[in-house]
Amino acid sequence: MTEDATPTSPEDLARHAEKMAKKKAARDKIMATKTGEKGLIIVHTGKGKGKSSAAFGMIFRHIAHGKKCAVVQFIKGAMSTGERDLILRHFSDLCEFHTMGEGFTWETQDKARDVAMAKTAWEKAKDLIRDPSNSMVLLDEINIAIRYDYIDLGEVVAFLRDEKPAMTHVVLTGRNAKEELLDIADLVTEMELIKHPFRSGIKAQLGVEF
Amino acid sequence: MTEDATPTSPEDLARHAEKMAKKKAARDKIMATKTGEKGLIIVHTGKGKGKSSAAFGMIFRHIAHGKKCAVVQFIKGAMSTGERDLILRHFSDLCEFHTMGEGFTWETQDKARDVAMAKTAWEKAKDLIRDPSNSMVLLDEINIAIRYDYIDLGEVVAFLRDEKPAMTHVVLTGRNAKEELLDIADLVTEMELIKHPFRSGIKAQLGVEF
Repeated sequence: MTEDATPTSPEDLARHAEKMAKKKAARDKIMATKTGEKGLIIVHTGKGKGKSSAAFGMIFRHIAHGKKCAVVQFIKGAMSTGERDLILRHFSDLCEFHTMGEGFTWETQDKARDVAMAKTAWEKAKDLIRDPSNSMVLLDEINIAIRYDYIDLGEVVAFLRDEKPAMTHVVLTGRNAKEELLDIADLVTEMELIKHPFRSGIKAQLGVEF
Repeated sequence: MTEDATPTSPEDLARHAEKMAKKKAARDKIMATKTGEKGLIIVHTGKGKGKSSAAFGMIFRHIAHGKKCAVVQFIKGAMSTGERDLILRHFSDLCEFHTMGEGFTWETQDKARDVAMAKTAWEKAKDLIRDPSNSMVLLDEINIAIRYDYIDLGEVVAFLRDEKPAMTHVVLTGRNAKEELLDIADLVTEMELIKHPFRSGIKAQLGVEF
């Protein structure tokens, strides 16, 4: 039985209350030092699932709080269509949505078009980020476009560092985020793949993957 | 310049198209073997952000597809209030929502009440999972309740393994997921913390953390 197991005596309960009161005091003291606010550069990367879903979760939080936000999808795949439909159908007044890419590059097999699409998406992204009425802008799968050199890493980093309004949050998702991007980011999460049902022959399923 | 950099000649473009056509053929061949469908046991764990957000993303996908789902929040904190408000306000016909806990245990300092709450939440969770009209049930922060022995790990594992309807997806979130749970899971993602703005004195912000 661990220290945290269900208590059986009044002494246990009292000890628990005291321990938790100390923990709360320590935590409150730490949190009191966290008073700053700023627009964050947030990166979700890694091979695991949830990079885009977690980003859309933040977009839904913004919508729930009545704050304006925007999404640019750099790669149009089968993924995230559920979220897109929901936003377009119910919340298009609060959240502008642009899907610029035409699918992963191995689907389209037309690099010149892919490059042109990515560049158009990046121009739109800059406009949306510059607009101070947007509280959060999600650049979904932009890391893929950067990785294939469809858009220039140096330009993205310089823009976010020098031109992003101070209070605007920008979220960048996709595998293989570049070091230079991680360097300027405030919040980086790596989604690590531990176990995946594809390995047991299970296909992508509605409501889970899309 | 890498092999994937922006092409400048017709030869480059043709080579790219050929390479991508091969990649697509290989990918299509692999994906054709993934034909199974089943209700998944999905775990989001790790110290990073996005565990609950990514889970709510899947809930929103279900809602977008008009499929019934449910959420039981085992720990009521400041977190996920945005998603909860959005669901209660707009989608309560499709998604049942129960917030059972009363905050993290160091906030309440009353273990007996925490244990009782967690047990009630688990009973509700079982009812929702047993109801075959629910396509997905999210047990948010249940790993915390298991870790503190508020609910019994063995019972949770046995229930998911033996009583979960075959096509129902169950998502379990929270740090420190137990090995026994990972063993029976189909899809496990660990959200790893790479960089966090708390370290620079930035507080939890609306639309990002809640």
